Amino acid sequence: MSLLVVGSVAIDDIETPFGKAVNVLGGSAVYIAVAASYFTPNVRLVGIVGGDYPQEAINFLKERHIDLEGLEIVKDGKTFHWTGRYHHDLNNRDTLALNLNVFEKFNPKIPESYKKSKYICLGNIDPVLQRRVLEQVEKPKLVVGDTMNFWIDTKRDELIKTFPMFDAFILNDSEARLLTNEPNLLRAARKIRAMGAKTLIIKKGEHGALLFHEDQVFSAPAYPLEDIFDPTGAGDTFAAGFTAWLVKTDDLSYENFKRAVIYGSAMASFCVEKVSVDGLRDLTYLKIQDRFRAFKELSRFEE
Amino acid sequence: MSLLVVGSVAIDDIETPFGKAVNVLGGSAVYIAVAASYFTPNVRLVGIVGGDYPQEAINFLKERHIDLEGLEIVKDGKTFHWTGRYHHDLNNRDTLALNLNVFEKFNPKIPESYKKSKYICLGNIDPVLQRRVLEQVEKPKLVVGDTMNFWIDTKRDELIKTFPMFDAFILNDSEARLLTNEPNLLRAARKIRAMGAKTLIIKKGEHGALLFHEDQVFSAPAYPLEDIFDPTGAGDTFAAGFTAWLVKTDDLSYENFKRAVIYGSAMASFCVEKVSVDGLRDLTYLKIQDRFRAFKELSRFEE
Repeated sequence: MSLLVVGSVAIDDIETPFGKAVNVLGGSAVYIAVAASYFTPNVRLVGIVGGDYPQEAINFLKERHIDLEGLEIVKDGKTFHWTGRYHHDLNNRDTLALNLNVFEKFNPKIPESYKKSKYICLGNIDPVLQRRVLEQVEKPKLVVGDTMNFWIDTKRDELIKTFPMFDAFILNDSEARLLTNEPNLLRAARKIRAMGAKTLIIKKGEHGALLFHEDQVFSAPAYPLEDIFDPTGAGDTFAAGFTAWLVKTDDLSYENFKRAVIYGSAMASFCVEKVSVDGLRDLTYLKIQDRFRAFKELSRFEE
Repeated sequence: MSLLVVGSVAIDDIETPFGKAVNVLGGSAVYIAVAASYFTPNVRLVGIVGGDYPQEAINFLKERHIDLEGLEIVKDGKTFHWTGRYHHDLNNRDTLALNLNVFEKFNPKIPESYKKSKYICLGNIDPVLQRRVLEQVEKPKLVVGDTMNFWIDTKRDELIKTFPMFDAFILNDSEARLLTNEPNLLRAARKIRAMGAKTLIIKKGEHGALLFHEDQVFSAPAYPLEDIFDPTGAGDTFAAGFTAWLVKTDDLSYENFKRAVIYGSAMASFCVEKVSVDGLRDLTYLKIQDRFRAFKELSRFEE
C-alpha cells in the first residue's frame, strides 16, 4: 500500500532549555515521511524547497526509501526556515523567526505516479492547499488531515470546509478548545464532529490522546518520558505513526484505529527524545513494536 | 475488613458556572466515608463538628451504615464552613470564605473500638494530625494518605515526614509540581518517591491518574464526562474508591492496586456529576461495577 505525504519541508533553528540546534531538518512532511518509512516502503513526498536544501537531507530521505519525485526544488529560492524557542515546561513555544521563502508560493502538484495513492496524510498546511491535493488524486482509501492553531486563527472557515474530506482529523487539545471555545474536550469533540470531522483524534501531549470514532471513545495513555528533549515534530510523527500503521495493515476497523493511535503515540515518543528528526534516524520496526507493547503494559488492567 | 476514615467534616457553599448550592454537605471525611460505604459495611469516621451540624446529615451518614462513634460534636461550637467558587473551566477555584470554627482545634481521638482498623484513609488534614492518628492505631495493614496544596505551602517538612508512614500517597498533578518544582510529572514522581512515598498516585483530573508502584507505572484514563457539575470532593472520593476496593478485596498486589485506581476514578466520576455528595447518594455496587467496565472499554486495545 502506498502513502502520499504532503506538507512543509523546512530548515529549523530550535532552542530548548537543554541547548540550541541550528539548521536542522524540519517541516511536517519530513517528520511524517521519515516516521512512516518504518512501516511501509512506499512513502511519497510532496513539498517544496529552495536550492539551499542540503544534499545530506536529500540523501537521508532517499536512504529512508522515500520517493522524492514530488519534492519541488526551486533552484534560485530559499527553503522555509523556522526559528523557535521552547519554554521551561516544553509545553509552550515562541516562534522567533518565520521565513516562509519558497513555501509561501507552495502549490502542491501531485505527480502522475502518485495519483493512485491509497492512503494520504496531509500535514498542517493551509487547508485550501489540503483540498487542492485531494482534488488531484483518485479516490484514496483513507485521508488523514492534521492542522495547527495558525490555520484555526486565520482560515477557520476554510479548515472546517475540509473536514468532510478527511476520514480522520487530528488536532491537539488547545487547538480543539480554540476551534470550539469549549474548555471541556468531550464537548469540543462533539462540536468538531458536528462540523463534519467523522473520526477525530485529540492529542493531549503528556496526557495521551483521545480517539472518537462512531459512538466510541478510546483513551490512549502517553508514554512516561522523564526526558523530553525537543517536542518539535511530535504532532507530525503522531499523524505518521497513526496513518502508516493503517497503511501497513490496510484494516480500517475501530479496533485497528485504536492500535493506530498507539503507534502514533509511540512514534511521537521516539521523536521527542532527541532533537529534530534524530529520534527517528536509528529506529527499527522491532523497537517500535517494543514500545507499542510498553503502551499496552502501561494501561492494561484486568477485571 | 474495617476502614478508618479521618478528615474534615464541613458545611459548604459552592458556586459553579451552573449555579449556587448553600449549606450542603462537605469535608474530606464525609466524601470518603460515603463513597467507601458502597464497598464495605465497616466504615468508621473520625472528625469534628459543631452543635449546628444538621441532624439530616447525621441521619444520612447513619443510613450509609457509617460508624459515627468517632465524630466529636462540640455542642456550643460551629461546624467548619467553606465557601468556594469555581472558574468557567472548573479546573480552578477560589476560596471565598474559610471558617474553620471547631475544626481549628481538631485533635483526632481514635475510639478504642477503631484502634484495630486494618485499613486507614487519611483525608487532607494537617500532616501533623495525620501522624497523630497513626500513633493511636495498632499496626494497620494499609494506610492511604491524601493532601492538598495548602499543606504543601504551609507544612512542607511535616508533610514529607509522613511519607514513610503511608503505604500509598495521593496528590494531584499541580500539587506534585508544587512539591517538587518539576514540570515533568515523571520526574516529580521520582522526587516524591525519593522523599519516602513508596506507592504514589498522581491524579490528573480530566486526564486520568498515574500509579507508581515499585518499578511500575500504570496510566488510568479519565471517564469521558461532558457535564462536570461540581468538582468538590472528587479527590476525596478518588481516595475512597481506591482504598475501599482494597478493603473489599484485601489484596495488596500491583494488579489489584491498578483496579483500585480505576475504582477511585470511577467514584470520582460519579461525584462530579452532581453537587456536593449528591452524586454518591443513589449509587449501587452494580452501577459502580458498570462504570469500572466502561473504564476498561475506554482504554482496552489488543495487539
